[in-house]
Amino acid sequence: MRGTVMYGPGDVRSEERPDPTIVEPTDAIIRLAATCVCGSDLWPYRGFDSIEEPMPMGHEYCGWVEEVGSDVRHIKPGQFVVGSFFASDNTCEICRSGYQSSCVHRQPGAPTGAQAQYARIPLADGTLVATRDNPAANLIPSLLAASDVFGTGWFGAVAAEVGPGKTVAIVGDGAVGICAAMASRQLGAERIIMMSRHPDRQRLALEFGATDIVAERGDEGVERIKEMTKGLGAHSVVEAVGTQESLMQSMRSARAGGHVGFVGVLHGVEIPGVEYFFSHVHLHGGPAPVRRFLPNLIDLIYQGEINPGKVFDLTLPLAEVAEGYRAMDERRAIKALLVP
Amino acid sequence: MRGTVMYGPGDVRSEERPDPTIVEPTDAIIRLAATCVCGSDLWPYRGFDSIEEPMPMGHEYCGWVEEVGSDVRHIKPGQFVVGSFFASDNTCEICRSGYQSSCVHRQPGAPTGAQAQYARIPLADGTLVATRDNPAANLIPSLLAASDVFGTGWFGAVAAEVGPGKTVAIVGDGAVGICAAMASRQLGAERIIMMSRHPDRQRLALEFGATDIVAERGDEGVERIKEMTKGLGAHSVVEAVGTQESLMQSMRSARAGGHVGFVGVLHGVEIPGVEYFFSHVHLHGGPAPVRRFLPNLIDLIYQGEINPGKVFDLTLPLAEVAEGYRAMDERRAIKALLVP
Repeated sequence: MRGTVMYGPGDVRSEERPDPTIVEPTDAIIRLAATCVCGSDLWPYRGFDSIEEPMPMGHEYCGWVEEVGSDVRHIKPGQFVVGSFFASDNTCEICRSGYQSSCVHRQPGAPTGAQAQYARIPLADGTLVATRDNPAANLIPSLLAASDVFGTGWFGAVAAEVGPGKTVAIVGDGAVGICAAMASRQLGAERIIMMSRHPDRQRLALEFGATDIVAERGDEGVERIKEMTKGLGAHSVVEAVGTQESLMQSMRSARAGGHVGFVGVLHGVEIPGVEYFFSHVHLHGGPAPVRRFLPNLIDLIYQGEINPGKVFDLTLPLAEVAEGYRAMDERRAIKALLVP
Repeated sequence: MRGTVMYGPGDVRSEERPDPTIVEPTDAIIRLAATCVCGSDLWPYRGFDSIEEPMPMGHEYCGWVEEVGSDVRHIKPGQFVVGSFFASDNTCEICRSGYQSSCVHRQPGAPTGAQAQYARIPLADGTLVATRDNPAANLIPSLLAASDVFGTGWFGAVAAEVGPGKTVAIVGDGAVGICAAMASRQLGAERIIMMSRHPDRQRLALEFGATDIVAERGDEGVERIKEMTKGLGAHSVVEAVGTQESLMQSMRSARAGGHVGFVGVLHGVEIPGVEYFFSHVHLHGGPAPVRRFLPNLIDLIYQGEINPGKVFDLTLPLAEVAEGYRAMDERRAIKALLVP
């Protein structure tokens, strides 16, 4: 099959790879309907995460079940399924509490790499959610988005306790941040402030549900949020970057008693204790437990309530994956969808 | 009147001070029924917080209203009142959301010092809660405890989302931690694990509601909590110390999706972002908004449901306040009550 391997910073190749096969009896093999490049793939691509050996890439996926292992009970060949970047049993106490991405049996969601024609998915019964039928082609980008980028933006909004009557600030205008705007609208937020200085991203954020744009960053950005909220700060802040600067901007943009939901993988961040203590802000986040939200998100997509697939502003054949990475790295694209 | 002043580390003096008077029309003057030494008073006493000039000490108080300013509407001379360490208007948006200790008009709760015979209390209508009548003498230590130490332990438990069926671990066996055990019992926790290595404190914690004692600390303490919780960690952890070690022990003792409520003033703490990201733990805390809880706590004390005054294991005349500090500093006493 065709798959994708990263050899080093800036070096992503589409190449012939062995077809994945069932390894554990709880595995499934899926044929991908669509896959994509993740913002988190850019960390190693840019050299911020080290690469010890060539890495099969990709962890966002939806597609058709080709084959299942002998212990798979609920997922059946022929079904269309959506999964996420961590495989989970969905039965342990942590999964049942809604934190499937910390499942006691957690493992990579697509260990053979999902930027490929086929992928092996561990713990298929726990990890995969089947759609009610074979979805129309126009739903597939949105179902793919639910797998990670939109599921992550949704978790950011949930972790920030977004709800009716609340003012939300979103720090980070990447695909996850923009998806958090759509999630916030769906969750009933009154005011959704997107912090962005890129016109194309501002436009998409407004289309997704943002009500206001703030172009200032850092202390100036915090000041603007305070001005817009009677000096108090936002009720909810979604942190969708993961740097020291963005986390501090997020904490300082929230009011006392408010909530910061952080979904950008924190890189080299230290949260200063004394300032945090006196801020009275709630902090919560981490790798999104997308599995918790998938059934609901799939329903909303089928009902036409949300169309997060619009976050993909570049579509390429899988063979041209390297251009997808380049376009996202150079900010020519927000998010690249790959057609296997 | 007799008051208390700290001149430098280890140097606390009981001395003659001017009687406080109404300064703002929203002030009240109270005559103290009882006061006490706070664990946080030990930070400057031990030289960890600097002392720029002689400081009037004390911020825990209950007593009788002597006089009110011309703008005070609800608090009346003769009432018995309980307040807390921050004065708040109790009407701003932050107060109404339950974060009175971040009130937009926040100021010190007893600027003239409450380790004294009389104290000036700003924003009296917002800050003070009157009891239904003149309380019996045996209720006074508990009403005093509600003012800070118990109110703070209660907030730690609330911030840690303690509730029915949950396992709570408490890090820190000072007066606040021990009070958090009583709060956790009252809030319906199933299992309350006190981390303590001092027999007198273990005994009091068990009396207050702890179901288990863990004497190990640091990584070993975390290991013990994991063993007691099927390898998952506690649902709720109350952090009642404020050091790097105790905060890390708290974070690591909580399960994915669990909650750490921190009420020890964080000193020199940096929360490591990457570890925190992957922990999936909720963090919340800060200076306890005691005012939010006071009406309920006063009711529970009057009903005999709780008796947090038992945390005072040393009672001294106000004039002997220096011995109260020494006894707490040397861990001869958990908490010293002072009789004016």
